[in-house]
Amino acid sequence: MKSIEPILLRVQKATPGLRSATDDQIAGVLRALADLLESNGALILRANARDLKRQKPGDPRNDRLLLNEQRIRGIAGALRKVSGLPDPTGKELDRRTLANGLEVERITVPFGVVGAIYESRPNVTFDIAALCLRSRNGCVLKGSQEAADTNKAAIGLIRKALSENGLSPDCVALLPADRDTVQQLMKAVRLVDLLIPRGSEGLIRHVRSNSLVPVIETGAGVCHVYVEAEADLDMAAQIVVNAKVSRPGVCNAMDTLLVDREVAPVLLRRLEGQLGYHEVEVYADREALRLLKGYRLLQRAKPEDYDREFLSLKCAIRVVGGMEEALEHIRVHSTRHSEAIVSGNRDKCERFLREVDAAAVYANASTRFTDGEELGLGAEIGISTQKLHARGPFALEKLVTEKWVIRGTGQVRG
Amino acid sequence: MKSIEPILLRVQKATPGLRSATDDQIAGVLRALADLLESNGALILRANARDLKRQKPGDPRNDRLLLNEQRIRGIAGALRKVSGLPDPTGKELDRRTLANGLEVERITVPFGVVGAIYESRPNVTFDIAALCLRSRNGCVLKGSQEAADTNKAAIGLIRKALSENGLSPDCVALLPADRDTVQQLMKAVRLVDLLIPRGSEGLIRHVRSNSLVPVIETGAGVCHVYVEAEADLDMAAQIVVNAKVSRPGVCNAMDTLLVDREVAPVLLRRLEGQLGYHEVEVYADREALRLLKGYRLLQRAKPEDYDREFLSLKCAIRVVGGMEEALEHIRVHSTRHSEAIVSGNRDKCERFLREVDAAAVYANASTRFTDGEELGLGAEIGISTQKLHARGPFALEKLVTEKWVIRGTGQVRG
Repeated sequence: MKSIEPILLRVQKATPGLRSATDDQIAGVLRALADLLESNGALILRANARDLKRQKPGDPRNDRLLLNEQRIRGIAGALRKVSGLPDPTGKELDRRTLANGLEVERITVPFGVVGAIYESRPNVTFDIAALCLRSRNGCVLKGSQEAADTNKAAIGLIRKALSENGLSPDCVALLPADRDTVQQLMKAVRLVDLLIPRGSEGLIRHVRSNSLVPVIETGAGVCHVYVEAEADLDMAAQIVVNAKVSRPGVCNAMDTLLVDREVAPVLLRRLEGQLGYHEVEVYADREALRLLKGYRLLQRAKPEDYDREFLSLKCAIRVVGGMEEALEHIRVHSTRHSEAIVSGNRDKCERFLREVDAAAVYANASTRFTDGEELGLGAEIGISTQKLHARGPFALEKLVTEKWVIRGTGQVRG
Repeated sequence: MKSIEPILLRVQKATPGLRSATDDQIAGVLRALADLLESNGALILRANARDLKRQKPGDPRNDRLLLNEQRIRGIAGALRKVSGLPDPTGKELDRRTLANGLEVERITVPFGVVGAIYESRPNVTFDIAALCLRSRNGCVLKGSQEAADTNKAAIGLIRKALSENGLSPDCVALLPADRDTVQQLMKAVRLVDLLIPRGSEGLIRHVRSNSLVPVIETGAGVCHVYVEAEADLDMAAQIVVNAKVSRPGVCNAMDTLLVDREVAPVLLRRLEGQLGYHEVEVYADREALRLLKGYRLLQRAKPEDYDREFLSLKCAIRVVGGMEEALEHIRVHSTRHSEAIVSGNRDKCERFLREVDAAAVYANASTRFTDGEELGLGAEIGISTQKLHARGPFALEKLVTEKWVIRGTGQVRG
């Protein structure tokens, strides 16, 4: 086991320089990186080809690792976009002058050093480094062994872009791509200020449960749409279908439809055709089972089906006796990601929005809007399902912490 | 081992009622509690007397457990003060209307259920319950075995105050005061939303390292005052003495004085009298040792002395060659709590304020101001030394998380 501490120390020492740099220098690094990436595309593609050569040919996962000219142009475009986002640091959160004359300010500041642990997509290396640098954070990156050559070439360009803009190349470092690095990162309490695991649920859970360094968790979504008795049923059917089928593999897709007993017969009849068209498998409770009798892809829901994040063209359907039952079902089964009500009754909508505990709550809209770009935040790292610090889309503006800055003229405490 | 899950479930089910209550109902609970406390003082004092009777007579720790009429009046006063603070929930953080017509809002909302783990002071029961209820959070309290009877009586009054104001008494619960409760709380991922350990450093470290539930850590402070070459030395001496002696047992007291070589002889000569008067033991580096020769309570600093939080009338003193050396010492030894510079040079002050990574940074003032009341936030739970969510004084306004609320008219994602 080789200690990564010397690398972490080097990055920690370099990062104060990012705090003192001008905004133009910081944005300049990302613009320069986009240029370098385009002019050195061949270098990156050669490294990527070496990585791909080590994989099993024909493995469908190779596509995640693959770079090509179009993807490189995409990454460069994303870098230019992040360079144009406003600096999230130095924002005044609070300012007061105390009776004793102390000038007290609370401002946003960089975390310091951010660690990222991710899997094989090499664009993540650029995305995370860009968001960290834009928010004046140093960063240490632990990618996958499969992408080792591509990541090495990427870091070379990032370091060059830093140097070209008068900043220390040590603000960013690539860590050895082995398991032991993860173990060390999770214990690096005074050297790494924030850890972001990106990838499988298993990885995220492992890091969340074991890390002594604070973690931002981008988690799974078991999301519900509740169609209330006073819903416009055409609207309800559109929302349900959109929430399930527009991109079933993502965390903001609907998993369970809760439908009020009063409108269940009409709604389910209306949904049958569209769900069938998209070949959605339905796990239904006893009542829904009866109402959907004859639907091709139907089976009885087992209790554990209500806790599944399907991530595919499957959903559960349950008939409820009203708001209370819907709220209770959601309280028990929700992963606090995205929850929606469809209803024409304003009071019921407001009660749902108020009482349901989730990162995003919707009235009369699809759960699929829980996304940084859609909500106007720009590139996101993921959807945070935690309640500390960042909740919902986790983007540039949350890559900061805060600091109390107090200016005096000799004040002492009585 | 008895499972605390039924209690946690009961509290979780009761808390949505707090979200729907009026502000007057919530404030009314705390006012009613203050009244009940004063009118039922005798009941609480009898319970407290039973607790005290179980302790070893003459143990100095008994004072922490003791309640008397004056302390009860103090607690009632604090409750009335918290009742008068503004509701931290429902604050709009962001609002936008998207091109598709979706109304997007980001607002502050209660965490849900807050768990507190603390030691013997019974006022904490009232303080934490009051701050949690004021922010519409349910709470579960794990006090110490020594205060069991007092806490039981306290919870009885809190539950009564809730009922009197039309709220479920189950919004607050006292948990069994044994170690196993701590173990269960740390694993109660979907039932408890935030855990606040209050007490010894050992307890806090244990909870931070082992909890799967998010923790707010109120930590130790190894705090520095750096007297720069252009400092006003009278001011510097006053700040140093205040930061060390005004209340040496607290986390914002100075632990290490860093002094610029240029001014060290004059400053240390000036400090000698006052430090001696207060009987401050000094751990000095070689240079300071020479300059303080003849000081009565002097010894050579060992390397580990620079990492000590003394919490007593002791401090380390080190002579540095300038800003760089001071910043480097602080980077290595600071616990990121409170750090101060004394200097007449504005640029140097600003560089220090910018580059030092701590919850509170000071120019020309004593570190002792890092405190919720002093900084105008009202009652605090502690000083957070973490970077996620709350940093510095952790008070009412940080007992909230946020939520995205999206209102539509049938929007679906393309």
